[in-house]
Amino acid sequence: MESKQAYLDVASRAALQAGEVITAAFSEQKAVEFKGKVDLVTETDKQCEKLILTALRQAFPSHHFIGEEGSAAQGFTAELTDEPTWLVDPVDGTTNFVHRWPFVCVSIGLAIKKELTVGVVYNPVMNEMYTAVRGTGAFLNSKPISVSQTAQLGASLVATEIGTTRDSETVAAIFDRISAVTAQVRSIRCNGSCALNLCSVASGRLDGFYEIGFGGPWDVAAAALIVQEAGGHILDPNGSPFHVMARRVLAANPRIASSLAGILAKCKVSQAEPGPLT
Amino acid sequence: MESKQAYLDVASRAALQAGEVITAAFSEQKAVEFKGKVDLVTETDKQCEKLILTALRQAFPSHHFIGEEGSAAQGFTAELTDEPTWLVDPVDGTTNFVHRWPFVCVSIGLAIKKELTVGVVYNPVMNEMYTAVRGTGAFLNSKPISVSQTAQLGASLVATEIGTTRDSETVAAIFDRISAVTAQVRSIRCNGSCALNLCSVASGRLDGFYEIGFGGPWDVAAAALIVQEAGGHILDPNGSPFHVMARRVLAANPRIASSLAGILAKCKVSQAEPGPLT
Repeated sequence: MESKQAYLDVASRAALQAGEVITAAFSEQKAVEFKGKVDLVTETDKQCEKLILTALRQAFPSHHFIGEEGSAAQGFTAELTDEPTWLVDPVDGTTNFVHRWPFVCVSIGLAIKKELTVGVVYNPVMNEMYTAVRGTGAFLNSKPISVSQTAQLGASLVATEIGTTRDSETVAAIFDRISAVTAQVRSIRCNGSCALNLCSVASGRLDGFYEIGFGGPWDVAAAALIVQEAGGHILDPNGSPFHVMARRVLAANPRIASSLAGILAKCKVSQAEPGPLT
Repeated sequence: MESKQAYLDVASRAALQAGEVITAAFSEQKAVEFKGKVDLVTETDKQCEKLILTALRQAFPSHHFIGEEGSAAQGFTAELTDEPTWLVDPVDGTTNFVHRWPFVCVSIGLAIKKELTVGVVYNPVMNEMYTAVRGTGAFLNSKPISVSQTAQLGASLVATEIGTTRDSETVAAIFDRISAVTAQVRSIRCNGSCALNLCSVASGRLDGFYEIGFGGPWDVAAAALIVQEAGGHILDPNGSPFHVMARRVLAANPRIASSLAGILAKCKVSQAEPGPLT
């Protein structure tokens, strides 16, 4: 029998299992720089994805999937439809994983009729499991969490990422945004995991986070719901409504969200960056 | 009887004790924004400092001290002399502490005849204790650590900080450096603790770290030795020799250290930032 609780249970168990694979590989020296050796990153990613998809398909055979590595032949779709659809990132924070930086996670989100319904984000290195089911709150290791109450931008800790695009127009846009935000907030953090940045807003460790041009909807699907269920706002960085497929996100506590959006809306835009969706 | 091992033992025990105070306060809502309430940050800082100084003074009554909060009346000195001198930061990563961000540490370093001799950096939230005695290697939770072997800047993960100075010339210089480094490396991290950034270079999680204008020598004294004992290079960001009192540091694995220094040496300089010491 399918229920939201069943979705959450299966997704959480799959995340824990994938977490064991990540933890086992985490401390090993990665070989991504050296051709010819086994690529531990790709191997871990594939192994975790297979494990998660197998668990979800066994429990919910009719559901659809959207994921970074997925092809149509494997039953993946590129578009979000009204069907129950799992958005899965087996290893978010790949660069961190390579460098043994402890912000690495599994991200598993479920959208039903295009509405984010279940979210699971698990950091196996720090043993932190974030979960949410729409309408029932957000949790970190089964304890309720809520966003910060910081009301002043000047007292806010805000995260973003430098990203991986290095064309000059995009780099200029990224630094224009960071400079503008830096001028108004207490400090900036760059942690290297979109999903964990969002979860850190949900738990109140960060007051806000924004990023434009991250990998795909699987990076935000689970954590965006977790932020909302923790009382946070999820927006497009320009202040318009959030769209899970847009590769654009702004998350913050409700007291500073519109101020942050106001700063970002005035910043430079690069033609190489994804624009807002409606 | 005083020995390097005794210095390390006393400092490690003091760090563990201070760590307990930090951990107890870590999850509490901090009140720095609201006047009139107890300032948990200042209280924790004071309590940890008192505890560490008491332990060090009891064991080594003739030693000198340099610290953030210290006044001459409390026996602190401002200058580094040839006397055995402890450089102590009871809570490095204060903003992280306020926001319950897990990169917070105690930093205790000992210089003898101006040479860094013992270093202890303890992150009680993640339970990670970094230690080094000159000439005997660097350790994380008693296991030997060494810097990364990343040879290409393009594959390197480099940390820095935005800092707290907000005059336009300094902000321009900070972003000039970050932009120049970003153009050459894989990615940038901003973690909010100078000592833990350095220790992360020592453990190979980061390939490099630089910062100009951090709080004081207590932020780097312990961790600079830990980096060196882990096989890393410690330099001034312009490539000249490191000076513990300069509030300027570049740490990296030996393969990329001079390339990083080469990039930074060409960047803008702000008159409000501390210059190199000789």
